[in-house]
Amino acid sequence: MAKQVKTAVTPTRSEDYSEWYQQVVKASDMAEHSPVRGCMVIKPWGYSLWENIVKELDDLFKATGVKNAYFPLFIPLSFLEKEAEHVEGFAKECAVVTHHRLEKNEQGGLSPAGKLTEPLVVRPTSETIIGDSFAKWVSSYRDLPLLINQWANVVRWEMRTRIFLRTSEFLWQEGHTVHATDKEAVERTKLMLDVYAQLAEEYLAMPVIKGRKTKSERFPGAEDTLCIEAMMQDCKALQAGTSHFLGQNFAKASGIKFQNAQESEEFAWTTSWGASTRLIGGIIMIHGDDDGIILPPRVASSHIVLLPISPKEKDRTLVMEFTENLAKELRNTWYHNSRLRVEIDYRDTGGARGWDWIKKGIPVRVEIGPRDIADNSVFVGRRDKEHRDKKSYKRDEFISAIKDILDEIQQNLYNRAVSFRQAHMKSIDDKNAFYEYFTPENRETPEIHGGFAISHWCGSEECEAKIKEDLQVTIRCIPLDRIKENGKCICCGQSSQERVIYSKSY
Amino acid sequence: MAKQVKTAVTPTRSEDYSEWYQQVVKASDMAEHSPVRGCMVIKPWGYSLWENIVKELDDLFKATGVKNAYFPLFIPLSFLEKEAEHVEGFAKECAVVTHHRLEKNEQGGLSPAGKLTEPLVVRPTSETIIGDSFAKWVSSYRDLPLLINQWANVVRWEMRTRIFLRTSEFLWQEGHTVHATDKEAVERTKLMLDVYAQLAEEYLAMPVIKGRKTKSERFPGAEDTLCIEAMMQDCKALQAGTSHFLGQNFAKASGIKFQNAQESEEFAWTTSWGASTRLIGGIIMIHGDDDGIILPPRVASSHIVLLPISPKEKDRTLVMEFTENLAKELRNTWYHNSRLRVEIDYRDTGGARGWDWIKKGIPVRVEIGPRDIADNSVFVGRRDKEHRDKKSYKRDEFISAIKDILDEIQQNLYNRAVSFRQAHMKSIDDKNAFYEYFTPENRETPEIHGGFAISHWCGSEECEAKIKEDLQVTIRCIPLDRIKENGKCICCGQSSQERVIYSKSY
Ligand SMILES: [Zn+2]
Ligand SMILES: [Zn+2]
Repeated sequence: MAKQVKTAVTPTRSEDYSEWYQQVVKASDMAEHSPVRGCMVIKPWGYSLWENIVKELDDLFKATGVKNAYFPLFIPLSFLEKEAEHVEGFAKECAVVTHHRLEKNEQGGLSPAGKLTEPLVVRPTSETIIGDSFAKWVSSYRDLPLLINQWANVVRWEMRTRIFLRTSEFLWQEGHTVHATDKEAVERTKLMLDVYAQLAEEYLAMPVIKGRKTKSERFPGAEDTLCIEAMMQDCKALQAGTSHFLGQNFAKASGIKFQNAQESEEFAWTTSWGASTRLIGGIIMIHGDDDGIILPPRVASSHIVLLPISPKEKDRTLVMEFTENLAKELRNTWYHNSRLRVEIDYRDTGGARGWDWIKKGIPVRVEIGPRDIADNSVFVGRRDKEHRDKKSYKRDEFISAIKDILDEIQQNLYNRAVSFRQAHMKSIDDKNAFYEYFTPENRETPEIHGGFAISHWCGSEECEAKIKEDLQVTIRCIPLDRIKENGKCICCGQSSQERVIYSKSY
Repeated sequence: MAKQVKTAVTPTRSEDYSEWYQQVVKASDMAEHSPVRGCMVIKPWGYSLWENIVKELDDLFKATGVKNAYFPLFIPLSFLEKEAEHVEGFAKECAVVTHHRLEKNEQGGLSPAGKLTEPLVVRPTSETIIGDSFAKWVSSYRDLPLLINQWANVVRWEMRTRIFLRTSEFLWQEGHTVHATDKEAVERTKLMLDVYAQLAEEYLAMPVIKGRKTKSERFPGAEDTLCIEAMMQDCKALQAGTSHFLGQNFAKASGIKFQNAQESEEFAWTTSWGASTRLIGGIIMIHGDDDGIILPPRVASSHIVLLPISPKEKDRTLVMEFTENLAKELRNTWYHNSRLRVEIDYRDTGGARGWDWIKKGIPVRVEIGPRDIADNSVFVGRRDKEHRDKKSYKRDEFISAIKDILDEIQQNLYNRAVSFRQAHMKSIDDKNAFYEYFTPENRETPEIHGGFAISHWCGSEECEAKIKEDLQVTIRCIPLDRIKENGKCICCGQSSQERVIYSKSY
């Protein structure tokens, strides 16, 4: 008879995945909704995770020659209008600044005053405003390539929001590069996709599929959009980063021209690429369990929490000293490119204290009581194991082992995610089977179902649209490792030369 | 007979300080004006300096227990209205978002649509929006102190802007803390002022005076504003950081209450403190010379540039190899808390190349030619010395000396700034002398004049206002090391108990 296991988070993933997500965010103390429509407050535990992601990704960018800069928050309306598809894509979700003062009104309150002659849009992305600078910075082929990144906040007015996954304001980076040839720009587009894939797989323990978006899913104004797609535990896809080849579209819109080696003038070729705080939503959804989030050690807000236990007053000094010394030694230990991040929780709240840290997803918990100290030991719990599955280590043995323990946790999270994806990804060639795959048994409150269907597509937008309308399933990407093979389109039955990845998504 | 020395920047400081500043910014390639009114573009060389300041300041904050978080860019108008003095102080310079969509208009262009029911203000500072979160986060004395910082962009609509010193959008950090007692909040206010002073003196090589603002110069809504003031080379003061004791004003406005140990409810005591990209303007103005900026090594965008010289094709490989190897070894060398930042300039532009780096203010330039290599030497120029004053070092001798060279440059910059301030700061007790001190000989195009006058003030706002109106001179601060002494107010002649610092300012 199976024992009824109580979980730290209610509901469980299988009971209600969407509500589970909200409860996990709350239980982890990572973020909360703000009183400003659609905006979130990122609390210290969530922000620290973001800081670590930023640091690692920034290092990866810089290793490819990218430099950081900063451009204005506001974009004049006329700039946005320069690229037709681009403005079309963002017009419906722009925060618009129309005034630059507040003035007392007749009711004694304040009203906007000082109307701007041209409205300003709060940047939803910065191609057009950065393009204006690039047009000034580039004049010769000797100025190229120009490789720039900016860390910034952006605003896309969203009606239905969800913390980290879809918010009106979010934090991100946007890279923008300029090249002398289309070939070089295409290569940079791929290189930055590889950087995102490396971040996802090595640092976030998030396996991803690299692919190309269909025309209908491209970034507004791009010639080609590459993406990485990860599978969440409700079998839906999350787009975790995108890299766009912009052709000469934005160069023409902004006038980015250069004199080539033959001294004639050409329009340049540009790319842009971005990843955002959405990655945090991905970490939660790919690794979390029914006790809360599990943070991958390489970017974890903190690595280890020390939990001193001294029920008797007489032991307190001894326990505290042992704990502080251990913390000091651990904090001087390097784990990959940074020092170990160590918390000490001095609170005297018994078992609840340990559960708090489980819900926060910290990789390693270390209990330190008088008996452990007598044995020069510590009692260690790992977030990738059952909460009761703890192990005693001699103090020094623990210090030598900690890096391996963290790497093991990192690897386990990655392996689990790969296994999960393997279990929920399959080739489907029959239309009925395809429709069945993406239809929940319980239509009222759908259970977790579906996954990634690797199926044939004839290439027509009509078939793509039909599947989307019928099933809310989209082509997540045409894998870069193309699955070339003759077959029949899953929708219309016409002949097809390759398989693509279909899925529901965030 | 004095030789006519040509400077890299025109005009010189003494010819036209204000225009010198603009030209130095341009020559250094640190930043430029953007097409968006009052906003700047921070270019890679300027942004990298900011990144280094951020890193050091962030570490100093964290060492005092502060944690980072992130709050919304937008503040509902009603929040700003909660504190009367506060909204009064910022209403005249607010960017106001009134719409959340763009719609095609009859002229075929786009117009704002989707009017918001309540306008949103782009944060000029975040006391009120952060206060709303804090009211939720704090319920018991056990939750205190709450020590939070945010790195963010803010907007204060400015009519007359100047890059780094006064721009409509700027980057900054704002710290916000909550305490159970006024004493503890006052201590935190002072502690954070000390952190700013440490950043300025140890990292930016910028000597500062710690003081308290008069009531009329306080942050809108504060009970007390502490500041650090530095003297620029035109003898004007720059406020380089402020720390505010907010009393219970914002706690009452936002409802930040806690249950004390006696289980009764009280309003909390809060502080806020900030420093911004304005610091970069300060670095330029305090250290720059007539050849451009001089970057203090502790935060310099880069420490060293290697300048390979190979006029003959046959030497090229040798020179490049030597240069790359040297760069590699230097980049693996630690300087304080970070690795040495090393540039290689491969351009073949002769003397102009060296001057570019002088104008960029890089602390150390290293020339590497075939003859140096034959002698296993490098030829080293320092930005704190005359450009011709270079010295040959054996390669390994240079590598062992580089950290000391950088520390020496850092110290020299600091010492120069201290000497300059000493030469332009004096006690003045006579009203005529005071007026003369702050009056340029050439009223049309004022020469550099004045400085810090340490003079008596009776404490009346009338005297303060009179001096400001007559001379555009303000009380920069009442020094924390108070200059207690009986005397007579420099303005009205009434009795005064202490001296304050008067100066023109940015
Ligand atoms: Zn088809
Ligand atoms: Zn007076």
